[in-house]
Order: sequence, then structure tokens, then C-alpha cells
Amino acid sequence: IMSDLPKSVRINEEGPREGFQFEKGPIPTARKIELIDSLGRTGLKQIQTVSFVPPKNVPGMADADDVVKGFTRAPGVRYTGLWLNDKGLARALASGKLDVKGTLSLTASEKFLLRNQKRTLKENIEAQHAMVRMYQEYKVPVERAGLMAAFGCNFAGDIPIPHVLDMIRQMLDIGTQYQLDLKVVSLADTMAWATPLSIKRVVGAVRDKYPQLQISLHLHDTRGMGIANAYAGMEMGVSIYDAAVAGLGGCPFAAHSGAAGNVCTEDLAFMCAEMGIETGIDLDKLIESALLAEQIVGHPLPGCVMKGGTLNRLRQKIREAA
Amino acid sequence: IMSDLPKSVRINEEGPREGFQFEKGPIPTARKIELIDSLGRTGLKQIQTVSFVPPKNVPGMADADDVVKGFTRAPGVRYTGLWLNDKGLARALASGKLDVKGTLSLTASEKFLLRNQKRTLKENIEAQHAMVRMYQEYKVPVERAGLMAAFGCNFAGDIPIPHVLDMIRQMLDIGTQYQLDLKVVSLADTMAWATPLSIKRVVGAVRDKYPQLQISLHLHDTRGMGIANAYAGMEMGVSIYDAAVAGLGGCPFAAHSGAAGNVCTEDLAFMCAEMGIETGIDLDKLIESALLAEQIVGHPLPGCVMKGGTLNRLRQKIREAA
Repeated sequence: IMSDLPKSVRINEEGPREGFQFEKGPIPTARKIELIDSLGRTGLKQIQTVSFVPPKNVPGMADADDVVKGFTRAPGVRYTGLWLNDKGLARALASGKLDVKGTLSLTASEKFLLRNQKRTLKENIEAQHAMVRMYQEYKVPVERAGLMAAFGCNFAGDIPIPHVLDMIRQMLDIGTQYQLDLKVVSLADTMAWATPLSIKRVVGAVRDKYPQLQISLHLHDTRGMGIANAYAGMEMGVSIYDAAVAGLGGCPFAAHSGAAGNVCTEDLAFMCAEMGIETGIDLDKLIESALLAEQIVGHPLPGCVMKGGTLNRLRQKIREAA
Repeated sequence: IMSDLPKSVRINEEGPREGFQFEKGPIPTARKIELIDSLGRTGLKQIQTVSFVPPKNVPGMADADDVVKGFTRAPGVRYTGLWLNDKGLARALASGKLDVKGTLSLTASEKFLLRNQKRTLKENIEAQHAMVRMYQEYKVPVERAGLMAAFGCNFAGDIPIPHVLDMIRQMLDIGTQYQLDLKVVSLADTMAWATPLSIKRVVGAVRDKYPQLQISLHLHDTRGMGIANAYAGMEMGVSIYDAAVAGLGGCPFAAHSGAAGNVCTEDLAFMCAEMGIETGIDLDKLIESALLAEQIVGHPLPGCVMKGGTLNRLRQKIREAA
């Protein structure tokens, strides 16, 4: 029945970056720091804090350096950032507070790549070479390869599995060329095309072809499949997931129609806990962070367990009443 | 990979009854009828329309007779109602428009039963005998046994699987005694305690012990597990699900904290369609019904696909652009 359910799952928190980048209203720097510090107390082992991108592109990340300066590192937690070029990387390194690692990144859909990064597939491969040379210059290890739109694309449609495998091969080829120690491949359902069945098929194919790679899933919840997709991943043995506290980045309001963030961290952590899968997360503390996130953005966020409550809380009440 | 995924799934729509019963504001009778008629055009094969309960208990269902009088039966659709006693059943029969079948109903948690129906387990068994005699008097067939709180209870906690099996046995015993042809057992996650793993364990145990019974799942989405639980059910071969259009009965507002309806019909239908599982549902028409439901209740509802859009719509756009 349980297929290959992992004994433990690692959840990488992406809320502060994915979420605050998306929010329309300016979020005060102090409140971003407050959320990151709150998340640092939950048992999460990795928190993506900011994106070092030009303020003109993403105004909500203009204060990235100050956010990083402001939070307090909790022991045992990796704090990460995102960047797209050497300027961003230099800012991340200059902070002296982030765990800086490089990622190779390709996109399974050239149409999306052209729209999103104004690059052809070929140009993107070249850009990855340049990124790797940059990482090597800065002595930043590169252990991770990421594939965006791995399950489908709003502009290219369904993505054939052989194409996914070929894109991974291209990243591994770059790895070989630069003697990188690529350990993890992250498959991103960037535009929420995945279902549990396609998760199983794609993950199964990648696992069979590249058994040396650990698979990580980055799942968006636009069509309500996020938790089911994560479960399907777990049945295939996937033990690394990106998630956003309270479902930050998404919003149930019709006015924000079509926007939806990553799968919700505490809903995912709840599912793991109830299925006996270790995450190291204190669910009650994580729910406090989720409620704080909702308070900070000032509108309802899609997370469910923060509203519905945990079962352990109910079990405790029942014990106390007995 | 695909385990026992069924080739087709039957979704029983519960939105008009579950949803409108929950809504605080009075919903005009004409609008309830409008939603039922809209749902009748979607390809759904069963729609639960109303609950025949005393208006003093559920004011939102005071107009049940008029709702049933008002809607137009679509061919090939079963229209059902809910009742808890002979007065309710008499109203359902008097309407002359409903597909009236009886259900045996037990609750796995006596504590919940005492709170919800003010009966002990023993009293509830006796009540089922009385109900069966009533059905036989009215010549109403009884083919379905339902078990509430089958996956856990806010007042009793976790429900052991042997207890679930024993409750089903008790219903089958009643069936034998009255020569009923019980075909379906509905397992209800009334208080949203299930996870995909507990779905698999409970369904697996029931399937092994009572292979002659078809299993149906009634899933609540309070903790965001609804779609994942439905998927887990499908992997165990379960092909009958209750659901509520737009997630009626639930509400993402913090003000309605903790309340959540059935798993959302169109999100479930979307998952089936994308996994190649036949439901007979026209997803675009169903989304029209979901948007109508949201308009009728006047606040956001939790359904995702109605906001995020279908993939077939995107595929069509891509084809047209090519």
C-alpha cells in the first residue's frame, strides 16, 4: 500500500521570497525579518529569504540586502537567496549571512523561456555555462540542477517525458564538463500542469534514467493539485519539497484570479506528520508563522491547516477530557 | 505506477444540499433552483438537491419542497434528497420528483453520535431497524450503508480499523436480517481526519474483508487533504465520490475558520480528466456552475480550477496560436 513512502521529508521554505515578491502592497522590511525569524524557530532546515534582483523588475525585493542584514540566523538552518546573474550573486556573497550554493537551471519549454527570460534554449545553455564559470570563480559549489515547466507549460502545452530526460542530460553534460558534483535535480511544476499521475510518470522516468540523482519537487497549487502531487511524489520516494508557509504567493480571492503560490508548507508538514514521515518541524510553531504571514500580507492566504487546526491539538483535548 | 486507478469515476454532487445548508444568509429559492438546473447540464449523474429536515433545525432548508418543485429534471440524472425520519421521507416521496433510495447509517464514534444525534450506538442500531422497516413499508430500496467519522473524530480521536470493520459488519447484519441488497458502503471522513495513507489503510481493510461491497468516499477538505485523499482512494480502486461544486460548504475566510465543505467537484473532475479517468462531466460547464455558486453565496469559495482555469482551455489556445 505504502509504495516507496520516504521515512523523512525535507521541506525547503520558499514563502518569504516567493510570497513577498508576489504581494502588491509594500511589506515593511521589519515584518519580512519577523517572518523569517519566526520560521527559523519551527524546525525548518532551509529558508529562502530574498531574491537579489533589480528593484525595477521586482520592487518588492528592493530591500533584499536589509532583510538579510536584519534576520537572526537560527542554528541548524540553511538560509538561502535567489539571483539570476553575477550582480545578484555578489550581493548574496557580500551579505556574509547566506548559505550560497549554485544551481544549474533549464526550462523545459522554449516558448516560456523566450517570454520569461527572453532567451532561446541554446542561449540559455550558454548562459548556464557562464553561470558555472561565475560560480567557479567565486568558489561557490554547484550541486543542484533545476528544470522549470517540467510537467507542462501554458505556452507550449504538455511536455513529453523524453524531452524532460534530455534536458536533464544536458545539465548533467555541463556538470561533467565542469566537474560539478550534481546531486539533486529539482523538477518544477511552474505553471501547475501536474497531476498525481504525471508526477509519478515523470519522477519514475527520471529516477529510472538517473538513479544517481536525488529528486526534489517544486509544486504550484493553482489547480488545487499541490498536496496530491506531493503525496504522489512521496509514493515515488521523493523526499525534498519546496513549499511556502500559509501558501504565500497564492490568494483565494477571485480578484487575484489564477495566481497561486507553492504548495502550503504547514499543510504538507501536517500530511507528513499524520503519515508518520519525519520532517523535524514543530507544526504548532509553523502554524504561528502561517498566521503571522497572513497578518503581514493583510489578506486571507490559502493554507488550510492554519484554519482547520491540527489533529494533535484535538487528540490532546480528548486526552485532557478523558 | 498506477496501482488500481479506476477507468471511470462517478461523482455525486452534494453542493446544493451541503452548501446551502451551511450558508448563513438566506439564499432565495429561485437561485437554489438555478444552481441545480445548471448542475443538471454538466454531465453529473447524481445531484443531491435538498435536506428534508425541520426548518427549526436547519432554517436554510425550510424551502426544500419548493426547491424540488422548481427544478427541471435533466435526462439521465438522479436527483436525490436527504431525510432523517419518516416525515422527511414522506416529503421526499410526495415530491414525486426525486430518486428515493434508503441508506443505512452508522457513526464510528459514539461520542460524536451522542453530540450530533443524541443517541448511543445501541440506540442508533435500533433506529436503523426502524428506518429499514419504514423503507420496506414505503417500498423504498436500501442498497447503501454509510459510516460517518470512519477516519477519525474530533471527540473520540483516531478510529481503529477493526472498529470500522465491525460497524460495517453490523450494517451487513441488518441487511441480512431484512434481506436488503446492500451494494455500496460509503466511508465518510466527516471531520477531516483522513490522510492519503489512512485512506489506503482503511479502504484496503474494508475491500479485503468485504470484497462484495463497492466503496464510496465522502471527503471533507478542512485540512486541505481532500484531493490527495480522493487520489489515494482511486489508487485503491474506489470509483464513487461525493463532492460539492466550487467546494460549497467551505469558505477560505478566516471568519468562517474551521468550516470546510466536501472536496470540490470540479477540482476532482479536473484531476480525473487529466489522468484519463472518465467521469462523463463537461468541465467547462461545471466551472460555469461553480462560478454561479460563488455568485449565489456572495463570497469566495475554495475551488481552485474555477479560478486557475482548465488545461484543455490552454491547450486549445496553444493550438489556435500555432
